[in-house]
Amino acid sequence: MKHGKFARDFGIRVRETRLKRGLSQEQLGFDAGLHRTAISFIERAERSATLETIEKLAIALDVQPAELMPTIKRRAKP
Amino acid sequence: MKHGKFARDFGIRVRETRLKRGLSQEQLGFDAGLHRTAISFIERAERSATLETIEKLAIALDVQPAELMPTIKRRAKP
Repeated sequence: MKHGKFARDFGIRVRETRLKRGLSQEQLGFDAGLHRTAISFIERAERSATLETIEKLAIALDVQPAELMPTIKRRAKP
Repeated sequence: MKHGKFARDFGIRVRETRLKRGLSQEQLGFDAGLHRTAISFIERAERSATLETIEKLAIALDVQPAELMPTIKRRAKP
């Protein structure tokens, strides 16, 4: 199942951070305790990460979970 | 299923932000397009939110998703 822009932007952030760390999907999967294919699915937004997965990825990538979160457009103030 | 500290901290942040906005669980559920019981489950960490749910909550609470993310302990640098 393809997910929306938010999941896609999250996947892009995971991928960019992983590459900055010089990690393969396999290495990140190993470090995070996730299957290599899970990393691939998340980066392509074919799987929607849960809080547990976000935490595991942040720990393995050594970033705060907030850094992996895409920004959203705020509502216009009335 | 009870989730870990990360999901509990997330639930606390959702609850605190909701109360700051003066919203009931029912109102937040309505605004976010989630069932009232889903809000209760998330706040008590009995359900692990997905990216989609995090986005919906952030929009309804008018905060950036990053603001709902608990911080994690960073690894000690070698």
